[in-house]
Amino acid sequence: MMAYANKAFDAFTVKLGRKIQELREAKGYSQEKLAYLSDLDRVSIGYIEQGRRSPKLSTLFVLAKQLDVSVADFFTGL
Amino acid sequence: MMAYANKAFDAFTVKLGRKIQELREAKGYSQEKLAYLSDLDRVSIGYIEQGRRSPKLSTLFVLAKQLDVSVADFFTGL
Repeated sequence: MMAYANKAFDAFTVKLGRKIQELREAKGYSQEKLAYLSDLDRVSIGYIEQGRRSPKLSTLFVLAKQLDVSVADFFTGL
Repeated sequence: MMAYANKAFDAFTVKLGRKIQELREAKGYSQEKLAYLSDLDRVSIGYIEQGRRSPKLSTLFVLAKQLDVSVADFFTGL
């Protein structure tokens, strides 16, 4: 990926993580509960929410199902 | 990923591919042009548009930039 895109993508990933955290908290789920329901490990959820890891699309798909939102909702306004 | 989620995710990936193709064509770009501008290979664009490959988030980020849309636009209505 081109250099400018790397920096911009890192910032995008941080904003995405914050949005996922917001939607999880709005649902009243802990990271542990969301991880359990999504068949993911809690550490991965933590890394994704901190923007330290860019989630796979399949992960976003499962998280959206468990949080009763659409995948588009994760990206709205980013 | 859980079995039901696999099938549903495959269908989601096909719809996403179609949406990317729609937005590319609306921009008047060929797959070759979009691949060149995005520093991707044309075959990858083809697989993604056919729903045969689930794009990485970084790929969607670059494609959105080149098509002058938001990443959310790829997922709206899926």
